[in-house]
This record gives sequence, structure tokens and C-alpha cells, in this order.
Amino acid sequence: MAKLFVFSLCLLLIINCSLGSRQQFQQQNECQFNQLQSREPDNQIQSEAGLTESWNPNDQQFQCAGVAMVRRTIQPNGLHLPSFLNSPQLIYIVQGRGVLGVAFPGCPETFEDSQDRQFQHQQQFQPFQPSRRHGGQGQQQQQSEENQDRHQKVRHIREGDIIALPAGVAYWSYNNGNQDLVAISLLDFSNEQNQLDQQPRRFYLAGNPQDEFSQQQGQRYQQGRQQQQQGRQQQQQGQGGQQERGQQGRRGQQQQGGNGKNLFAGFDTQMLAQALNVDEEIVNRLQGRNDDRNEIVQVQGQLDFVSPFSQGEQEGRRQMGGGGRANGLEETFCSMRLKENIRDPSNADFYSPQAGRVSVVNSGTLPILSALRLSAEHGVLYNNAIYSPYWNLNANELVYVIRGNARVQVVNENGDAILDDQVNEGQVFLIPQNHAVITQAGNQGFEYISFRTNDLALINTMAGRTAVLRAIPEDVLRNAFQIDRQQVRDLKNNRQETRVLSASSSSSRRPWSIMA
Amino acid sequence: MAKLFVFSLCLLLIINCSLGSRQQFQQQNECQFNQLQSREPDNQIQSEAGLTESWNPNDQQFQCAGVAMVRRTIQPNGLHLPSFLNSPQLIYIVQGRGVLGVAFPGCPETFEDSQDRQFQHQQQFQPFQPSRRHGGQGQQQQQSEENQDRHQKVRHIREGDIIALPAGVAYWSYNNGNQDLVAISLLDFSNEQNQLDQQPRRFYLAGNPQDEFSQQQGQRYQQGRQQQQQGRQQQQQGQGGQQERGQQGRRGQQQQGGNGKNLFAGFDTQMLAQALNVDEEIVNRLQGRNDDRNEIVQVQGQLDFVSPFSQGEQEGRRQMGGGGRANGLEETFCSMRLKENIRDPSNADFYSPQAGRVSVVNSGTLPILSALRLSAEHGVLYNNAIYSPYWNLNANELVYVIRGNARVQVVNENGDAILDDQVNEGQVFLIPQNHAVITQAGNQGFEYISFRTNDLALINTMAGRTAVLRAIPEDVLRNAFQIDRQQVRDLKNNRQETRVLSASSSSSRRPWSIMA
Amino acid sequence: MAKLFVFSLCLLLIINCSLGSRQQFQQQNECQFNQLQSREPDNQIQSEAGLTESWNPNDQQFQCAGVAMVRRTIQPNGLHLPSFLNSPQLIYIVQGRGVLGVAFPGCPETFEDSQDRQFQHQQQFQPFQPSRRHGGQGQQQQQSEENQDRHQKVRHIREGDIIALPAGVAYWSYNNGNQDLVAISLLDFSNEQNQLDQQPRRFYLAGNPQDEFSQQQGQRYQQGRQQQQQGRQQQQQGQGGQQERGQQGRRGQQQQGGNGKNLFAGFDTQMLAQALNVDEEIVNRLQGRNDDRNEIVQVQGQLDFVSPFSQGEQEGRRQMGGGGRANGLEETFCSMRLKENIRDPSNADFYSPQAGRVSVVNSGTLPILSALRLSAEHGVLYNNAIYSPYWNLNANELVYVIRGNARVQVVNENGDAILDDQVNEGQVFLIPQNHAVITQAGNQGFEYISFRTNDLALINTMAGRTAVLRAIPEDVLRNAFQIDRQQVRDLKNNRQETRVLSASSSSSRRPWSIMA
Repeated sequence: MAKLFVFSLCLLLIINCSLGSRQQFQQQNECQFNQLQSREPDNQIQSEAGLTESWNPNDQQFQCAGVAMVRRTIQPNGLHLPSFLNSPQLIYIVQGRGVLGVAFPGCPETFEDSQDRQFQHQQQFQPFQPSRRHGGQGQQQQQSEENQDRHQKVRHIREGDIIALPAGVAYWSYNNGNQDLVAISLLDFSNEQNQLDQQPRRFYLAGNPQDEFSQQQGQRYQQGRQQQQQGRQQQQQGQGGQQERGQQGRRGQQQQGGNGKNLFAGFDTQMLAQALNVDEEIVNRLQGRNDDRNEIVQVQGQLDFVSPFSQGEQEGRRQMGGGGRANGLEETFCSMRLKENIRDPSNADFYSPQAGRVSVVNSGTLPILSALRLSAEHGVLYNNAIYSPYWNLNANELVYVIRGNARVQVVNENGDAILDDQVNEGQVFLIPQNHAVITQAGNQGFEYISFRTNDLALINTMAGRTAVLRAIPEDVLRNAFQIDRQQVRDLKNNRQETRVLSASSSSSRRPWSIMA
Repeated sequence: MAKLFVFSLCLLLIINCSLGSRQQFQQQNECQFNQLQSREPDNQIQSEAGLTESWNPNDQQFQCAGVAMVRRTIQPNGLHLPSFLNSPQLIYIVQGRGVLGVAFPGCPETFEDSQDRQFQHQQQFQPFQPSRRHGGQGQQQQQSEENQDRHQKVRHIREGDIIALPAGVAYWSYNNGNQDLVAISLLDFSNEQNQLDQQPRRFYLAGNPQDEFSQQQGQRYQQGRQQQQQGRQQQQQGQGGQQERGQQGRRGQQQQGGNGKNLFAGFDTQMLAQALNVDEEIVNRLQGRNDDRNEIVQVQGQLDFVSPFSQGEQEGRRQMGGGGRANGLEETFCSMRLKENIRDPSNADFYSPQAGRVSVVNSGTLPILSALRLSAEHGVLYNNAIYSPYWNLNANELVYVIRGNARVQVVNENGDAILDDQVNEGQVFLIPQNHAVITQAGNQGFEYISFRTNDLALINTMAGRTAVLRAIPEDVLRNAFQIDRQQVRDLKNNRQETRVLSASSSSSRRPWSIMA
Repeated sequence: MAKLFVFSLCLLLIINCSLGSRQQFQQQNECQFNQLQSREPDNQIQSEAGLTESWNPNDQQFQCAGVAMVRRTIQPNGLHLPSFLNSPQLIYIVQGRGVLGVAFPGCPETFEDSQDRQFQHQQQFQPFQPSRRHGGQGQQQQQSEENQDRHQKVRHIREGDIIALPAGVAYWSYNNGNQDLVAISLLDFSNEQNQLDQQPRRFYLAGNPQDEFSQQQGQRYQQGRQQQQQGRQQQQQGQGGQQERGQQGRRGQQQQGGNGKNLFAGFDTQMLAQALNVDEEIVNRLQGRNDDRNEIVQVQGQLDFVSPFSQGEQEGRRQMGGGGRANGLEETFCSMRLKENIRDPSNADFYSPQAGRVSVVNSGTLPILSALRLSAEHGVLYNNAIYSPYWNLNANELVYVIRGNARVQVVNENGDAILDDQVNEGQVFLIPQNHAVITQAGNQGFEYISFRTNDLALINTMAGRTAVLRAIPEDVLRNAFQIDRQQVRDLKNNRQETRVLSASSSSSRRPWSIMA
């Protein structure tokens, strides 16, 4: 038992150490801005069954933070092809539900199908079926191995999940719900897991997808918009419309009719056939020749795989994991927990019935984040509520607006407001390290997800019960601000809330005026 | 008990991990110098009650090491306004004594006043009073909470202290002594705690201070010198002279009459008033409008705050802490030890009655340094004593001359002396990693403080009992240097001291000539 | 006992922490290549008793990975002068055997000679003698200390050893065998142990050596070739030929007749004589005046030093260390294990009787690598065998071809083969992080050593029993590649080997056709 513990710990450490070891090729002097902006994505790629939108990673804000951001919309029954990145990634599920498959190198295929697939084959286009049924048929073990499918663990994802993926780890995702599956991702390419240069790079294992960080956004954007409309109309694989899409945005159009843009595509067909010990015909398909579906493809029928399909069980496991069992024994390299629902109100870390709630997922909550050196915060501010002014001690922060809007001000070391704007749904803005920020929700309230480039990010608030001013003696404040003792006490005591502050139209000076 | 231990350890780890996680935006090719120089500060800012001098951070030496240096002089009863940096900082107290307040985010206000402040108010301008008296009046607990002051721990600092501060943590300091409080600081902006670009940045929480790293030093320097003279004459708040100062060096003079240069200044006054739930009048003071006192202000009367004022107790605690009790139980995030007296002769790590002494403070001595990845060394060389030639294995080193002077030679990989100069009191010079250095004190001796960019910096000496030559077999040295066996033995054995070598005018070959 | 353990652990941690703390001055945008190349060294320096060849560190491939590579040939009885680097280093012994001396700062001289050296002196030129004989004469302790030699541990090295050296640690090596000692080194100057800029720098402690990373390779290379021929003919110290060499390639020829290019050379002679307490005559030799032997010198007679000369014992120790005793108790800072034989077939990690074998040395095998953040892999592919296509998740990889040749293809994120070439003995090529690579041995087989810039580097194979495709459900692959179920099964199951795949000329589809 003790041995097992040590072994598991060892495996756990491997991913911590091996995936978290160095940081390279960093950019310079990119934080000298006089002005920040809240931005919408400026590039998009239409796929057969979805849409990929990205923010220009060469924008000064993203260069300063060393990150890139991508929003991906997968239509029902759409499959995002297996790929990996040169950076760790945090994904927030904005809407919908789906499944996520992650292929850790060298880990066993723990999801095993013991059912007669020949039987299934006849009903290939049947809807997705929970394999609890499979479980009940475990006695049919006498089949040959070739008739079974085995694969690594598959994870169910849903709105409000934060998903953490290390650099270089291949994953795929599939929308098995009824509405679009929308995800917003932060790619931290200045992370030490990236030993290439300061460019986000996605490596596909299948298909012939476009580069989602391509700089040719200009005219393509408008076309993309139109295409999206078309795409939604032609949800079934309409050859004509897609041919058109395929031709428009393709970088290196000379290659058409040639190989695709995935990792198999660059290998010599014969050598690869020999390595895989398969026909060259299969290799041609691997290499994505003439595949114009782009990175999100329409599944024929519905995707069938082995899975204990039960959202309830998933949740239960999480509860237990959080209750003190995350001891390294259950979380090895191969079964490591990769996600956490950050939107569940019952997990809120800060809550005010008048003002809203805030939840944080960091390496204390989700241990893999210590290897990724990233964390996330989700918040809901009620109408006109204020998020206490604060600064990040040890992280840059990128905020994506999920719903509603807010007025945001960011202040630099010269006391200048370098961002003073209304931020709206679907926009992203940067709060650089050490800069002060204040946020006031609009009339419809404000919901956001923010990504921080530190797994144990710290903030210091400038108003409220835990504010920096309360840590400082009265006499220091009195002399610093040239105010009298009563004014100091107002400053220290008039707000008894912590992070989310209720809107109070009156600037009353008495603390009890706002106390619950 | 065990639980408490784990909890404390956890808190301790938080600051280690969260504040020590990444390193970004680093400069390039900046260590290609043919010549190093020992430098005095080339920029200065006069404040109401003190002087800030900085070395140009764009100087090639500082760029190579990725650091900046600042010397600050706080006059008696002067208060350095609360601020924080985008980098970790090591401060050495060159002269004087004072108090330091550090505001850790989310930590409780553990210094509580239970005395009737109304009573105190009448005698507001009484001299600083040790609150041991307060302690004796603890029975007066019946007062309302509004009449008490609470704040976070306040630390007493004195000549010879090394103080370690993480990036982003706000602090203030106050000179409660009778002479100027002088401090020299190293700011390590290439540290992974800084995720902004390679510029030192200071963020103030009060006042309207000038940028101490501004590049407009040229003509201002001379003016500053004159101002300093003026400043000393006008130690009491002379309106005229300060107005003049305020107008001269201010970057962005258009803003005069507008807001100050602190973090509150950039926020919308109304929104901030609402967040703090105070009058806009108070917010105006927070925003530093028309405050021309700069960053070190004169305290009206003397500063009064809760403190167990007893230098003796402080020392006692340190002794105990060093004696094996630094077990993580007493050192949580909030009560973490931030200072260590490096000048106390009784703490010397290397000592020769003939030559001098050397003390080191690293993460073994002061655990927070493991998060800051910095360490310090203090040394006193008697007249003409030699610091054994050595190289730093894993750190750059910046040396500040406290008293006296020395001849210093720094040698690069081509065998060229890139520094060969006399260094004098108040100057700073760089010893780059792996470069060899030899130092010989002048006739008045030599006292220095050196900062190294590694929390467990290692050096290898080239002379003395622990020298690299002693580690190598005779025959290797004989062939490497083409000398005979007796010469090798002289080389290995003629110096029995370790780091500080006594001056011996004769080059006697016999070891006993220098042995004690 | 427990105390001893804690102390040793502490020492162990020191090297981990102190030598592994920061990373600085990194280059930018250097991984944007359309083409990689397999390269031979493009610079060489002829020494008295050997040859130093280096790859241009400014080549884009090396800049991308932030590394440099050097191959050094030491002739029998040649001594590579003591030196250290500004980066950690992994050395692979390609051929021959020798001894390695490493001088850790502050560590005791644990190899002690108790023999009468006067007696030895008479037979000074006797061949290298194992000092087991010395051990038998331990009773002669009555001699004066001056007649004994003491030094730090000396390590025996031989073909197939991987040697790990931290930045700044001085070492020397000596060929005590009968054939040339050939070593290939990786210098990771983008490692956090290097706080200087992005240039490899070697600092010598003796002699007057040329800069092995000098950029003046052009015409010197051909001259070097000729010189090598000459050098081999003039193995005994031929004054004429060496004078010529000394004059040709010397950077800064003005210095000739002046000091050498070692660290002692730049110091003032008198000051250094005083520090060492020796004659200036000795100092002149230390400073390498008029030494034209370059960095590898011919030993007069044979090198004599204290050593328990027994390859067998060394091996035995290793076996025990690997068997569970690496507990920090035996491996302190001073006695840390620095090498591991990676070529020993009995240590292979992957083996196929038909295809070849692969061994890995990482921080699990050799703990010091966790401080260096490097690892190595050695492989032997039989003729026409294939190394499974794969990508590195978290490391760049540099491969040196030891013997034979292979066809190699490296594919980038656009599906383009940026390397598609035959690689030959003595060449180096880069496999950038996340890029896919396939290797097929030529008719004579293929032996290589590869260095990875991560101490726990992970790869994901694209063919074989542990391939990424086996981790993914059938239906996902079927839709991703647009193939039928039987083709998916062929893809997943037709190769049952893992990393090294046997050559199979037929592209048979049945798994049993290749199973053993």
C-alpha cells in the first residue's frame, strides 16, 4: 500500500516535473501601452460542423501577457479533430455539453468494450448510446480481441467546466448535445512548457485544417461571417458550399489535391505504411488528401464509443475528490483530473446576496494546474454591482465576457487609466500584472471568466473588508492622504463586503448603511 | 496540532509557489561588454522628507543582470508612502532605524489597539510611544470598535538588516530614529515574479510621486543636488520650495491641478467613492490631487501606531528562530519572517582576525528568499586584506560599497580584465556569473553589501584552503601549468585561510608564514 | 542517523535548488524554419594532444533549441585543461576511456595519498598505476603533510557513458587509454542555470586556449584539417608545428607574448601572487604566458594521481545505487553521481530482437538531471528498422549519429516535411518540440545519442502498441480519417511493437504477420 502510494506520487510528480520545467524564447518590451482595448476575435475559420474564431496573437495586449485566445463553436454531432498545442491550455465551456478524449502517452486503454461489434455494425447510425448497457453484457468475453474496441478514458464536459490541458497532449472533442458547444481557450505560449518560439501552434493528427492563428484575417473575416450563415444552412455535408470554403481561406492553395496539413501528411507514404503496417490507401486517408472539412467535422450518424455515461457519477466523483481524497493515490499521470466546474453556484468562494458571486479554480482545487501555472476565476455580478478595485500581485489576467456588460477601468503606475470602456459579451480584455482595475456591472449584470497566468494567483483588493488600506495603521493613512482621523476610519470601515460590492447609490459614510 | 502544521506548511507553500512561478520578457545579448564600471547613481528625486537616487536601469551592466538599484534616504520623521514593485526586492539598511509595514493580501490585522483613542487624540503630537503601555491598559475593552485601530504586523528595522519583499506586495516605511534612514535596494525585474516587461515599475497607493526610474536624469540631477540642500534647510513643510520642486521634475506637467500618479488616481472619482462608500472629498485626497510632497512625506507630529516596541524582543525572537524553530509552524504566509541582520559580527560565516569577516543570508537563513531567488552577502575587509579570487557558479552579483574603498578586477572568459578600478563608497559594480573577481581593500578597509541573483548562490574560490586548485591532483596542475612538484605544493598549500586573506607583503613560499 | 539524513538531503537539495533556479536572456523567433539540415561541425581547433570541433551556435537550429554542441577528441595521454561553462552540459563518450575530475566548491579532498612521494618522484614517468597499491601502504602515515597529495574524487569514464555537469563547475579530463577519447557534448545555454546572455562561454583555469565557439571558422576549418594530420604525426611536443598552430587561429594575436586566455591571466600578477602567497614566477605560469598548447595538452610521462582504479567496483556501485539505495543519504552534493552508462545493452528500456534497442537516462535514472533539466536517449536500430514516428511533448531534441545512417523526416504543424534527408555518422540534427519525426535505419543499421531539453521528456508515438491512435475510440478515427471500421482496426492493431519497429517489406494488414 505504501509502495503503491509512492509509485502513484512518483507518477504524479512526473507530470508536474516533466511538463513544468522550462521557459524559453520570450518577447520583449511589449507592455509599454498607453491604451488597452476590449476586443472581439479578428479571425475566423469555418469548418464543416463549426466555427473557430481567434484573437490576433500579435496584438500588443496578447504579446504582453504571452498568450493567445481562441473561441470554438462545435455544432451538434460535430467532432473537433485530434490535435495538440505547443503551450498549455485552459478551456472554459461557455455553452452546451460534449465529450473530451485526451491521449496521454503510454497510458493504458482503460475503457474496454466487450460487446459484439458485428451486431452493432448493422445499426451503425443508431443514436449515441450510454454503454451502461455494455456493462451488463460483460459475460460475452469469448469474442476475439479484434472485435472489441479499447481506448483511453473519455470525459464528459458541460457548460461551466474549466478544462486544463498540458502542452503536447493530443485531444479531441465531440458535441453530443442538442445545442452548439461553445468553448473559449487561453493558450499560454510564454509558459515554460513551450520550448519553441513565441507563436501559438496547433498540430493536427488528422484532416486538412487551416491555421487558426493565420494573419490573413482581413477580408476573410467578412467572408467567414457569410460562410457561417451558409454553414448553418448546409449542416448536412453539402459538397458545393464546402468546396467553396475550402478554396477561399486555404493557405498554400498550391497544395490542393496534395497532402493535408496534419502531422501524418508530411511523411513519406510508403515509409509510413511500413511503420503502421497498413495499406497505402489507409495512409492516404491519414494524410488528409482532399479533405476539405476543416478542423471540425460532421460525424456520420452519431459517435459511438465506450463510456459510463452518467453525468451524475461524474459529479459525485468530483465531490469526493474535493473532500480530502486527492492524495496522489487516485490521481496518477493517467487518470489525472483535468476539469472542474467553476460555474456551479454551490462552489462559490465569495458570495454576497446583494452583489453576486466569485469562484476560483487554482492548483489547490485542480492539482494539474501547478504544472500548467495557470488558474481561472468565474464571476457573476448583479446589476450595477462593483467588483472591488484590486491588483494582481503575481499574474497577468485575461477576461472574457460571457454575458452582460460592465464598465472597466485599468490604471497603470503613472496613475493613468489605460482602459476605460464598456466591455460587452464576447469581448476579451487584459489586466496586466500590478495594474489596478475596477469593474462595475451594467444594468443587465455581468458574467465573466478570467484566466490568470499563475496557478496560485494572488490579488490585493483596494476596497472592502480585506482591503490593503485596512492593513495599514491609521496614522500612516492620515499622513499619506492628508485626511483626518474620522476620514481614515470611513475609508477603512465603510465597506464590510470583500470582493463583490453591492451597488449603493448613496455615498453614506456610516458602515451600517451597507451592512447586511 | 498535526493539522495545524499541515495548514501552516500549506500557507507557507502558497507564497513559495504562487510568488515564484514564471519568468518572462527577458532581454538579449546584453552581456557582451568589454568594460564594466563602478557607478554612482545617475538620477535623483527630492521629496519633502527624503531623497531617492537610482542607477539607470538601461545601463548595460544592469541590463545584463536584469536588475535595477535604488538608494533611498528618509529623513527623521519621514514616511515613504505605501507602494509595491513589479519585481522582488532585497533592501539593505545602510544607516539608521525605522519601521516597516507590509500588507499581505487577505491576512488578518493582528496588531490591535484597545486604548481610548479620544484620549490620545488630545495629545496627538506626543513623541512616538512604545505601546507596551497600551498592553498594560488592555482592560479598557468596553469601547466601541470604531474607536480602535487595527492593522497588520509592523516590523522594526535597523542598520545591517536585509529585508526581502515579494513582487506586488505593498509596503511603507517610516524613520522613527534621530538620523537619516538610508537603504539600498536591489530590484530583480528579470525574476519570474515579474510577468511584465523588463522595466522596473513602482506602483504607489498614495501621493503624487515622480517615477524614480525616469530617464530624464540629465539636467535634473544637478537641480536635484541643489534641491537636496534646499530640502535639508526646509525640513519643515516649506510651501515655496516644494512648489518649485513639484514643478521642475514632474513628468506630464499638463496634469498639474489634476490627479496624482498613484493607483487610485486613475479611477473615476464617483465609481471609486461608491466602491469605498465614502465621500468624494476623501476620494480626492486618495487620488493625490495637488500633492507635491513626492514619495517621502513629512509626518505631522510623530507617527502613532500599535507596536510591541522593543528591539530586544525582536532580537530574541530571531535567535530562537535561528535555533531550530523555523519549522513552518510559526512562519505562515502572514507572519513570514522578512528580515535578517547580516551585519551583526556574531553571525559571521567566515572570519579571520587578521583579514575581516563575511556573512551570507540565503534561503537557508531566510526561507522567503527561496521564493525570491535572491541572496545577499555582507563583508568587512580590514586594510589591505584580500577577498580570495573566485567566480560565481550560478548567479550574477551586484556589489554596493558601504564604506572605504578597494581595488577590484573582474576577468572574462578571454582572460581580459573588464573591470580594473578602485571602487569607492556609494558606488555599485557588477560581477557577472562565471567571471573571476579579486578584491583588495584599501588603507581604510572596505565594507560592502552584495546581492546575488540566486537564493543559494555558490562561489568557487581560486586561492585559500577551499580553493579549486586544492581539488585537483598535483600531476594535473603540474602539467596544466608546466610547473614542478614543489611549485604545485606551494600553490595548493601556501594559503590556509578561506575567503578573506590577510595582507602579507612578502610573497613567502612557506605555508606557516601566514598561518595563525 | 535521522539528523545525518536531513543533512544529506539538505546538501542534495542545495544543488537542486541553487543550480536550478532561473532562466534568462532568451532569444526570439528563431524556430521559423522552412528547412532543417543535418550538419557536421563547422569549426575546429587543433590542440597539442587533441581536436575540438564545434557546431556554429548561431545556426538557426541551435538558436531555436537554445543549445550548442561540441565534439572533442583527446589523444592518448592527453589532458583537457580544467574549465567550466556558463551552461549545464551533457557529455556522451563516443569512444575510448579516461578519467574525469570535477571540483565541487567547498567539498573535501576525499582522495588521499599516504605514500612517500619522494620515492615516487624518482620514477615519475612510470605508467599510470592503480593506487590500490597505495591502499596497501597505509601504515606509512608518519610522513609530513607536504609530502602527500589530496584531491577531490576522480571518476573513470568509458564509451557509452552519459556525464552530467552543472553550470560553473570546473572539471578536467584525461585519456588514460590506448585509443582516442572522443566525446560529444550538449551545452544548454537557454537553461535557467545560465544567467548571462545566449552565448556558450567556456572559462579556462589554465593555459591559453582558443575560443571553441569563435565565428572565424571559414578558412580555418581547412587549415584545421591539415593541422590535424600534422598534429597526429607530431604527437610528441613538436615545437615548430605548434608554434604555427598557435599563430594561426588565435583571436587577438596582439596578445602573443602576453598573458593567456584563462581566468588567472586577467588578474594583476602581484595581487594574485599575494593572494596565493606564492612567487610571481608561479603566477606567470598560472597566467599561461606563451603557452601554445591550446586546451588539450600532452602529459609529460603519464598522469599519476590517487584513485581506486577498478572499473569493476565502479559498475558494482552503480548497480547498488540503481537498486533502491539512491536515498539522498549516499548522494550528497559532494559525492553526487554524475554519470550513467547508457549504451550497456542490459540496461535497455525498449528492445525488439528484430529491430533494435533504446535506452533512456533521465532524472529518474540520474537524479542530478533534475537540476540540469536535460535527459538523453541512446538507440541502436538494426538494418532498415524503423523508429516509430513520434513527437516530443515537452522538449527539443538534438540527435548525434554515432554510427551508420538513416533516413529522417521531420514534419511541422503545416504538414510540411522540413527535414527529409539521409543523416550520416558524425552529423547532428534537431527535432523541434511537438514536430513529428520518423527514422528508418539504412542497410548498415543506425546508432545514435539524442539529447532532450527536459529531464523527464515525454514522447507520444504514432505507430505501434502504445501509439496515440490506440488511445482514441474507433468511431472517432473512422470519422476523422473517413475510413471504414476494418481499416481503423488495421490502423490500431497491425503493429504490436512499441518504439523500434522491425522492417517488414510487405504491407500486410494482419497483425500476426509481424508479431514475434
